Parts: sequence; C-alpha cells; structure tokens
Amino acid sequence: MRATQATTGNSKEFPLFNNYPAIWQAVSPHIKTRICSKDEDVVHHGDNASALWLVMKGWVKLTRQTPDGKETTIGLCSDGDVFGEAVLFPNASYPYNASVMADGTELAAIPADIIRSLICDNPSFSNSIMALLNDRTTQAQLKLEQMSTMSAAQRLGCFLLKQCENLNGNFHKLNIPVEKHVLAAYLSMKPETLSRSQQQLKNAGVSVNGHEFVVDNLSMLRHFVCESCPESGNCDDIGND
Amino acid sequence: MRATQATTGNSKEFPLFNNYPAIWQAVSPHIKTRICSKDEDVVHHGDNASALWLVMKGWVKLTRQTPDGKETTIGLCSDGDVFGEAVLFPNASYPYNASVMADGTELAAIPADIIRSLICDNPSFSNSIMALLNDRTTQAQLKLEQMSTMSAAQRLGCFLLKQCENLNGNFHKLNIPVEKHVLAAYLSMKPETLSRSQQQLKNAGVSVNGHEFVVDNLSMLRHFVCESCPESGNCDDIGND
Repeated sequence: MRATQATTGNSKEFPLFNNYPAIWQAVSPHIKTRICSKDEDVVHHGDNASALWLVMKGWVKLTRQTPDGKETTIGLCSDGDVFGEAVLFPNASYPYNASVMADGTELAAIPADIIRSLICDNPSFSNSIMALLNDRTTQAQLKLEQMSTMSAAQRLGCFLLKQCENLNGNFHKLNIPVEKHVLAAYLSMKPETLSRSQQQLKNAGVSVNGHEFVVDNLSMLRHFVCESCPESGNCDDIGND
Repeated sequence: MRATQATTGNSKEFPLFNNYPAIWQAVSPHIKTRICSKDEDVVHHGDNASALWLVMKGWVKLTRQTPDGKETTIGLCSDGDVFGEAVLFPNASYPYNASVMADGTELAAIPADIIRSLICDNPSFSNSIMALLNDRTTQAQLKLEQMSTMSAAQRLGCFLLKQCENLNGNFHKLNIPVEKHVLAAYLSMKPETLSRSQQQLKNAGVSVNGHEFVVDNLSMLRHFVCESCPESGNCDDIGND
C-alpha cells in the first residue's frame, strides 16, 4: 500500500458528501489516499474500526468467514462506494475483511475522530449518513428478496445494471475485474450457475468475454431483470453511495 | 383498528429509546397506540411515510410484491420491534405493506414531524437512530450470507434463537402465531423445506406443535446453528431493536 498526495477529487464523486461541499472541504485535508495492489488486505475482520473508506478508483471485496471455514463475499465496492461504516459507532470493530481486487486501486480513508466530530458538529450531515445506512439496508434487503423472486440470470443482470448506473446511452462495455468465483459468491450462486446465467443473458443482449461484459441494449436488459424485482426498476435512488 | 389510551410503557421496552428516557418522556404524549385485528393492513407500500411504528405486543408482517405477482415477506416484527424507518427521510414512502398477524396486536405510531424534530433537536439521539439503521443492515446482510453458509434447518434454528433473546434459562416454549407459508417465505424457503427443517431440528432438541415451538436446550440449538454462521454466535447486539 503506497501513500500518495491527497488527490481526493470533489464532493460530487461521493454521494455521501453530495450536498455538503463545505464539509467535504473541511474533511479533505484529513483524508489519506493510498494506491493499492491486487490482493492487498486493507481491513481485517475484528480490528478496531479506525477509518471510513472511500473507493476513488478500482475494486475492493468485503468477505467474512464462518467458524466451519466457509467464506462469504458480502460486498463488491467500486468507484464512489464507501465501506467501513462501523467507524460511526464508538468502540466498533470492522465486521468483515476488505481486500483489493485490482492493481492501482485508489482508496481514501477518513479517520474515525474526524468523521465522528463532523456528525456532532453538523447535525444536518447526519441525514446524509442516515441515508447511506438506510441505502445499505435497502440494498441488502432487496438482494435477499431477489433470492426468492428472481432467477440467477436475472440477479446477474441486476448486478450489471448497477454497473451501468450514471452512464448514458443504451450500449455499454464494462470491464469488471472480479474473478468468477468471487462474483458467484457475491451473487449467492455456484460458479457453474454463474456460467449458465451468462449464457442465458445472451437472450437479453449481454455477451461476456473474460472480464468484459457487453450490454447491447440497456432497456432490453432492464425489461428482462426488473419484472421479477420487488423494486421493479425504481431503484435509481438505491446503491448510489 | 381501535385507538386506545396512550399506554405506551417505558423506554426500556424500545432499545431505540433505551438511553434516552427524557426523549421518551417528551415523545410519549404524541404517540398514538392502537389495538389491531388479524389481517388488518397498517401500512401500504407506496404511501407517504407518516409515522414510525413500534410493536408493543403481537405480530406484524412486512411484505412486497413484484410486477409479475410474487409476494415476498421481508420482515416479521414482534414485541419491541420498529418498522417504518422511511419516515426518517423527507418525502419518503413506505417501501412495503405491513399487516397484522394476530388479534390483539398493539401498535404505537410516532408521527413523522415529531420523530424528525427529535433528531434535529437532539443530535446525540441521531446516534440511536443510526445504530437502528445499522442493525437493520447487519441483519439483512447476515440473512443474505446465511443463505450461502447455513442449511434451511439452521436458518429456522437461528430464527428461533432470536425469539429466545432476552429470555433466561435453557428451556423455552415459544408461541409464534405466524402461518407456515409466511414463515417459510420470510426464511426464503419453500413450505415443504420448512416442514423438513422442523423434522431435522428434533436432533437439536426442538419440537413443534402447530404454532408452538419448544426449545429443550438453548445451548444445543446454538451449537447446531452458530457454527455455520459468519457472526458465529456474536449476534447478541444485533436485532435487539
């Protein structure tokens, strides 16, 4: 992990700070940015939560293990995502491991005391934090519901739709450097089910080549995915943190 | 639905207000309590979120529907639980239906403006709200992980362990007036899988007779369930809202 100059971009890149440019300006000098390599561990499950992490660029996976040795992938974070919310609570520890999935992944860390005093000093900012936490719940809850209502192919399609958020147009070429077994684990399916799902998505205009996913027609994919989703396509406000 | 005198108990019954007896006292006069009948709809998906709801006594299910007609059960709330957190956010609507599952269910509603001004006027109280929202995320996330790491019988066992929380002793007789197809839907399994799971739980000292679940030995059940859980039994702080 290499510390860099604080090139922390602007508040627009992080929905958490979207409506709080002054707070972003206050926090910026305290942010430590780092460029990380593939497989680097950033956060260890059980460690004291010392910072809130922002993904500037790249990919990070969040994982946990059961006592009997199974690993679960509970999060895949990319540009603009936030992890380590445990930092918001006194004496909390990180509830997962976070490790980097792609070379050159750029992360920014806001120290615990800074983020907590921001909340204390700016009650209105706590609204943004609450919205972030509520989005987390909505996303996790929705994924849980989708396990009952959607096919594996539809759930993969939903993940791809999320990657296309904030992009214009109907045609998209996505580079997703996530190993297949990790993506399968994240989507709560077996790797062979993921392969079958990729085949089935051809009918919805999606083709896959290695880490490259080509979405021919976003509307067609949306139609295929959203008819079986409890949010039925009204999820634009979810998951943009 | 019948309005009653405000017999809203004390703050200890609601972890949300646990550390804020003064706030509870301020909010109490504004709380409207109601005694509801089975199948009564309390909240409609899409309606403007006008109140935060507390379950004083009884059972409420939270459900949603997909465009293609499937129903999902996303929550089963009982004594001490809270629903309708959407009220915390301006112009939000309820993201689910809430309907009563047992006659005599007693609910209390805190109006939107009251709960929002409480947060505004008491920045420290927003910590309690954030903890509530974070618990929600943790619970939903954990259920999602358990879909991969735990068997259906273990997931049913986990649900029963939650019902035994805050109870003393090793032997417990639980009355859970939740129809089998609703409980199965909540646990993301088919009704026939729930039946099989009940059979399997006999080996962990659990017997079932209608709506009555008898847990012979909590430690034995915990051992059976928690070895395959990413929280591995450290979930005492989760789900107590």
